[in-house]
Amino acid sequence: MAFSPLIDQLVEALRCLPGVGPKSAQRMAFHLLERQREGGVHLAEALQQAMGRVGRCRTCRTFTEQTQCAICADPKRDRSLVCVVETPADVLAFEQSGSYRGLYFVLMGHLSPIDGIGPAEIGVSDLLETLRDSDVEEVILATNSTVEGEATAYYITEQVRALGIGVSRIAQGVPLGGELEYVDVGTLAHALSGRRAVE
Amino acid sequence: MAFSPLIDQLVEALRCLPGVGPKSAQRMAFHLLERQREGGVHLAEALQQAMGRVGRCRTCRTFTEQTQCAICADPKRDRSLVCVVETPADVLAFEQSGSYRGLYFVLMGHLSPIDGIGPAEIGVSDLLETLRDSDVEEVILATNSTVEGEATAYYITEQVRALGIGVSRIAQGVPLGGELEYVDVGTLAHALSGRRAVE
Repeated sequence: MAFSPLIDQLVEALRCLPGVGPKSAQRMAFHLLERQREGGVHLAEALQQAMGRVGRCRTCRTFTEQTQCAICADPKRDRSLVCVVETPADVLAFEQSGSYRGLYFVLMGHLSPIDGIGPAEIGVSDLLETLRDSDVEEVILATNSTVEGEATAYYITEQVRALGIGVSRIAQGVPLGGELEYVDVGTLAHALSGRRAVE
Repeated sequence: MAFSPLIDQLVEALRCLPGVGPKSAQRMAFHLLERQREGGVHLAEALQQAMGRVGRCRTCRTFTEQTQCAICADPKRDRSLVCVVETPADVLAFEQSGSYRGLYFVLMGHLSPIDGIGPAEIGVSDLLETLRDSDVEEVILATNSTVEGEATAYYITEQVRALGIGVSRIAQGVPLGGELEYVDVGTLAHALSGRRAVE
């Protein structure tokens, strides 16, 4: 049923958000109209600005409105380390962990030949270009622990090794606070084969 | 952690949507930036238009960008019936059921003295004004089956009766397809006391 053209249009437009179906889009539209007009206007402005002006960092490919992102431009970062991740959200996750002070390279995806995503689409040649004539001593592969993530890590390993730069893969094992009883068998197998001697 | 000013701003602005926390706001922002730039721009426009131009129908108080909503303006609607609901979403629900051809009156809430919402805030005097000198023969109270909804229905009943207009309340009982075993005791009690003779 048509409610009123502008409201219908808003409900339809809200459905471009991930995980928002017709019912929640309608709830969002009414919520904004009833209680959050200012928030709605503010959101419209933020969207317009971000959609129009956010591009990619020329060095690490993450999202930024500058030519180079804050991390790549920061002189205090350790320039001997590059951590390769799939998405900007992964960069955020590492930064929130507070345990990494090196640089990043964001693939913006993973190898997926069936979807037409090859090495060119995830910027492997850009990565290799960055690594050549740089101070990088180690490339840390932090792609997801999925079949595609592993394949991507494997492919990049081959390419980076050819440049004579060290490559590592983040550890796979039991998550912190994980109870062994509820950990899946694949993870357990990895945790076992990746065991370390206690010093 | 600050990602980039425009992205942080977008994530923050998305949180005005109901049910969207920091993590889903971030996921939405990256989704739009990665795959839905056009959708994001379109959403910004729809928001701007709706927030700025959608007001209230002068007759039934529902959301519309015209002075009178499509339902109130429709000459084919039955002007002897007015259905009183709490929100515009309720109007939509009745319209989707396809079982009602009368008019509506939208309270935009319910009586809630503790939040400072009295008869004036839900427009009871507007309703009475509309009913006076009109062709309305019956007011159907379709506020929610909650304590506040019942109290609101009771209050409006008293006021409308004083005008000599008939008042009815939508039936409370077992929902269609509901299995008795899983229906709560309050609903069962209502279903029992509201039973009808089989013809």
